[in-house]
Amino acid sequence: MREAYHVELERLADNLAEMCGMAATAMERATTSLLETNLPLAEQVISDDQKIDDARARCEEQAYALLALQAPVATDLRTVLAAIHAAESLERMGDLALHVARAARRRHPEPVLPAEVAPYFAEMGKLAVRLARQAEDVIHTRDVEAARSLDIADDEMDDIHRHLFTVIMDKNWQHGVAAAVDTTLLGRFYERYGDHAVSVANRMVFVATGKMPGYNSDEL
Amino acid sequence: MREAYHVELERLADNLAEMCGMAATAMERATTSLLETNLPLAEQVISDDQKIDDARARCEEQAYALLALQAPVATDLRTVLAAIHAAESLERMGDLALHVARAARRRHPEPVLPAEVAPYFAEMGKLAVRLARQAEDVIHTRDVEAARSLDIADDEMDDIHRHLFTVIMDKNWQHGVAAAVDTTLLGRFYERYGDHAVSVANRMVFVATGKMPGYNSDEL
Repeated sequence: MREAYHVELERLADNLAEMCGMAATAMERATTSLLETNLPLAEQVISDDQKIDDARARCEEQAYALLALQAPVATDLRTVLAAIHAAESLERMGDLALHVARAARRRHPEPVLPAEVAPYFAEMGKLAVRLARQAEDVIHTRDVEAARSLDIADDEMDDIHRHLFTVIMDKNWQHGVAAAVDTTLLGRFYERYGDHAVSVANRMVFVATGKMPGYNSDEL
Repeated sequence: MREAYHVELERLADNLAEMCGMAATAMERATTSLLETNLPLAEQVISDDQKIDDARARCEEQAYALLALQAPVATDLRTVLAAIHAAESLERMGDLALHVARAARRRHPEPVLPAEVAPYFAEMGKLAVRLARQAEDVIHTRDVEAARSLDIADDEMDDIHRHLFTVIMDKNWQHGVAAAVDTTLLGRFYERYGDHAVSVANRMVFVATGKMPGYNSDEL
């Protein structure tokens, strides 16, 4: 019974790690499609989103099976529930990459972003991909310290996001209201993606160790 | 065993309904603080958000206890998991109301919104509150038809949200970039709130009936 539980939990963790990789690839391509007005790449992100949704459904089914067949309690139970929450966040990260790709498609062949703010999005895109890859590493390595490093990347993301507002709101903004609106929404998509990645990593640590970083498991 | 399960599930449903009411009140007050530049009301929404977070933690603990002590399977298991997801969406609805209240506080004593778009937000605020109250009704009445009525209110919300963009992007927009950015983000908060309310109602139908509206339970 215990052995079957751990084999199944291992499979679930592998699938969550794979979802991290899918979410990272989606945001990497979405960012490229945004910055290089690459329509085929945007279309690919849009059509591939279904695969992330399907992966989430598979993770939930695995989690249901674990709960139904093994009836875990205590930390084991919380671990499976953490996996269910992580899968939900990962699906949402895929949706946010999808929103970026749709913005690129909507304005094609025009660029969505004024050249002035493009470098911020290049950087936020890199941070987003790094965050998703770090979450993937956490699940493979069970490295609690690696989970903490996500906070650093997410803080950088938040700093850029805040700075972006000062650029948009500055009286020297030359690009009009429509570009300001697009920039605002896109900035928010990256910032939310980062938040979800941090949440996934924290839950992954729980899946790997039975403890949430920074908390006693009793507090959860 | 079965009776204890149903008593506990009933308590969990009551707590979720109470969370719906809290999320509705939060958005009602946040909207008033936004439209009437009412700082004390904004502060109240901001400080009350902790109560919604606490209620979510209580719902999760109840769900954990149900799973650990009753080890439900099949539909019963999916019902408890639906409740966990609903609690997460309700906490997020509280966060979105909090964002609205923070915007009102940030610009106080100036209004955040140009008078031209205020009526759209008055309407979106009403729809948001109606959606949360309808979700609350669904859990009390177990009325599957009532859950469908949320789709109508949410479609109205989406229509207003779309129209808002045409107003902001119009060449006659007189209110500058900063107001456009604020209006864009606030519009998104209401639209996301509506999406979460619909998701909650659908999951509430599941908690009440074991079936998701519009799906066979096999598809879930």
